[in-house]
Amino acid sequence: MQQVDLLISNALIVTVDSQLTIIEKGYLAIKDDQIVAISEMEKNIPFQANEVIDATGMLIAPGLINTHVHTGNTIYRGFADDMYLQKWLQDYIFPLEAKFCNEDTVYLSAQLSIIEMIRSGTTTFSDMYYFEHQVAKAVDEIGIRAQIAETLLDFPSPSAKTAADGLNYTEELLKNWNKHPRIKVGVAPHAPYTCNGNTIKEAKKLANKYDALFHLHLSETQLEVENCLKEHNYTPTQYLEKLGVWDKNSFAIHCVHLTEKDKEILVNKKMGISHNPQSNMKLASGTAPIKDLLDKGALVAIGTDGTASNNNLNMFEEMDMAAKLQKLAMNDPTVLDAKTVLQMGTSKGAQLLHWDHEIGSLEAGKKADLIMINLNEPQLVPLFNPYSHMIYAMNGSEVDTVIIDGKIVMRNRKITTIDEGEVLEKVNSLAKRIEKEF
Amino acid sequence: MQQVDLLISNALIVTVDSQLTIIEKGYLAIKDDQIVAISEMEKNIPFQANEVIDATGMLIAPGLINTHVHTGNTIYRGFADDMYLQKWLQDYIFPLEAKFCNEDTVYLSAQLSIIEMIRSGTTTFSDMYYFEHQVAKAVDEIGIRAQIAETLLDFPSPSAKTAADGLNYTEELLKNWNKHPRIKVGVAPHAPYTCNGNTIKEAKKLANKYDALFHLHLSETQLEVENCLKEHNYTPTQYLEKLGVWDKNSFAIHCVHLTEKDKEILVNKKMGISHNPQSNMKLASGTAPIKDLLDKGALVAIGTDGTASNNNLNMFEEMDMAAKLQKLAMNDPTVLDAKTVLQMGTSKGAQLLHWDHEIGSLEAGKKADLIMINLNEPQLVPLFNPYSHMIYAMNGSEVDTVIIDGKIVMRNRKITTIDEGEVLEKVNSLAKRIEKEF
Repeated sequence: MQQVDLLISNALIVTVDSQLTIIEKGYLAIKDDQIVAISEMEKNIPFQANEVIDATGMLIAPGLINTHVHTGNTIYRGFADDMYLQKWLQDYIFPLEAKFCNEDTVYLSAQLSIIEMIRSGTTTFSDMYYFEHQVAKAVDEIGIRAQIAETLLDFPSPSAKTAADGLNYTEELLKNWNKHPRIKVGVAPHAPYTCNGNTIKEAKKLANKYDALFHLHLSETQLEVENCLKEHNYTPTQYLEKLGVWDKNSFAIHCVHLTEKDKEILVNKKMGISHNPQSNMKLASGTAPIKDLLDKGALVAIGTDGTASNNNLNMFEEMDMAAKLQKLAMNDPTVLDAKTVLQMGTSKGAQLLHWDHEIGSLEAGKKADLIMINLNEPQLVPLFNPYSHMIYAMNGSEVDTVIIDGKIVMRNRKITTIDEGEVLEKVNSLAKRIEKEF
Repeated sequence: MQQVDLLISNALIVTVDSQLTIIEKGYLAIKDDQIVAISEMEKNIPFQANEVIDATGMLIAPGLINTHVHTGNTIYRGFADDMYLQKWLQDYIFPLEAKFCNEDTVYLSAQLSIIEMIRSGTTTFSDMYYFEHQVAKAVDEIGIRAQIAETLLDFPSPSAKTAADGLNYTEELLKNWNKHPRIKVGVAPHAPYTCNGNTIKEAKKLANKYDALFHLHLSETQLEVENCLKEHNYTPTQYLEKLGVWDKNSFAIHCVHLTEKDKEILVNKKMGISHNPQSNMKLASGTAPIKDLLDKGALVAIGTDGTASNNNLNMFEEMDMAAKLQKLAMNDPTVLDAKTVLQMGTSKGAQLLHWDHEIGSLEAGKKADLIMINLNEPQLVPLFNPYSHMIYAMNGSEVDTVIIDGKIVMRNRKITTIDEGEVLEKVNSLAKRIEKEF
């Protein structure tokens, strides 16, 4: 009898391993931060556990991986909607950030975001905002897993006067947080239209120095592509290829407007692509050619983008929309089936973040990052196909218990590592100040 | 002091009345089935109530109105997805219905659907399926409000051998249920491609005889339009106009593929249009021209369609998608703003069902059909704009309490009028039988 910390029994287990194994009634043993065994129920389970959870009526799946979010601006959720991007940015977001974005508000906003993500089944996210060491602090304390990256801009940001300042800030992040067991630090120029070629190249150099991921927004709008063609004579994808920053350690966010040559480059360079369908819809950016990219062999994962363009951080909604939007766009109901999309929300996200040796699927030897879903909800009854339910029927509120790095961070819908009510109250107070002072 | 049954105090009230009044901190008094007062909080509220609910931290809104659903097939949720319509219908749905659709399964499926709808904030729905007197029975017992209609077909359906049988069944429904305070009976030929001109005209005649609504699926797919043009030389909309069945007592479901002339007809005839964006996306049917229809003055409401093409009955998800899909389709983030879409999910739905004298908004004199939403959820924090949250941030699980016709049918997320667990258990048992015997 091997001693383990936690034994979860009698569960329907959706592993999302390479064989897409489903265990109708199985158990999962966790020791420290790892899954040590995963198997069908046996008469004599060869583990003795400090705690046993009977997961009858539960579906266990890998935690979802949100590959693009801006946790620091969740405190502006719903402040301004239904308007053109330029008006929204210049009349609302930039002035809001100029006035209210600081170390304290980013920390609070990250706490709020992490609470929301855990409650809707996300166990890992990739962030891009300002004052990211505050995000790291919240990640460390609450117990989620994250890749964090300071947004680099050529003009002053809330956290840096210049791009060089931003690079210094990023190097500090790399030094302070890159060895944390649940944190990776990335290097993230905002976009080709807000960072010049030198900033982008310096960013990539820094990423290489620390073996970190490099990522940025790319080809989100038609206007961005047109302006890039005017300014650089290349599409954004081709412009960055010329700058020499594309390789398997880079990933690009959005990729809505791509030429055939762009697609080839992204595939040949083995880049990751973070697809954010709800943001692209809400901002009327367009539909990313995901089916085509997948057919060409691209690595595509899913992100919610920030609450400003969504307006929540719910990966179950995002996966649902990824599937439905692509069917509509391709005029074909068979594309992006439920299995494919669940992989995009789990194992492919892990690959994109170069974390697939540890997370993204439930397998012995991997980290214990998993969600327990209560199937006893009317929208999940009856159950013929767990993939279908996870993509098309769930809304995220069915997630009952969340384990990250072997630790129970939510149990029976109560987060164990932070006082949720206190965070919500603090955000509500801040919102009153924002309303008054804006 | 007037005596009332229920007083709800300290709530943020989103009335969706014609002025779109919002009461930041108000109360609402209910006597019998009616709202007798709605007002800002006063020092001395002139009502004495049998029960007082302190709704601090709650948002109160009209219950949502789902204008198109097939409650009888919710028991097949997730049985078959991601396939072409013809394969799905012929290999799965028709054989399933032939084998398992009967009075008992429709009753059970309606119970399951109603539980799901109430839990996600829907207080009224419009149904189209078979054995609708079983749906009426479930509606009566659980306490939701509905328009029910037996689907008419020229070929044998589970409930009728011929169209004439279906019309007889419908007339029985009209006689038995049309005077129920929460039930209306409609007359519903399935579609112009499954009912001949005579069936459609007879259906409209029957509707007129009982002053009932007439409704059907219309122009859902491009193929339907092409076939109609071949067979009748008219688009479906124009073909039905020639049959003389279009007027303000008719509404059409889907309306994805419309010519300019079609749109004019639907607007001029003051028809209602039920928009089902998630179904249209999942089946790759296309994008209905909702912005254009609204600009022309059309009456457009929202429906989820059945679980087979969604796969849930969640109107909050549906409103979110209606807004985002139209922004994407029109390449304009300002179209279908949150206020407009909330009206489509409430007051416009009431208008479409000719029920707006009683429901669809919170006003003194109207029926008390309302939902109480718990704002103390991370995805609803902070709160700057309640319309934005209801459309873009909510997932439906925040609905805490539901009142229909003055009666509390859900309190603290527990439905008071039926044993939810028992229904889910029965559906799970039936599903096992379906899996075994199919």
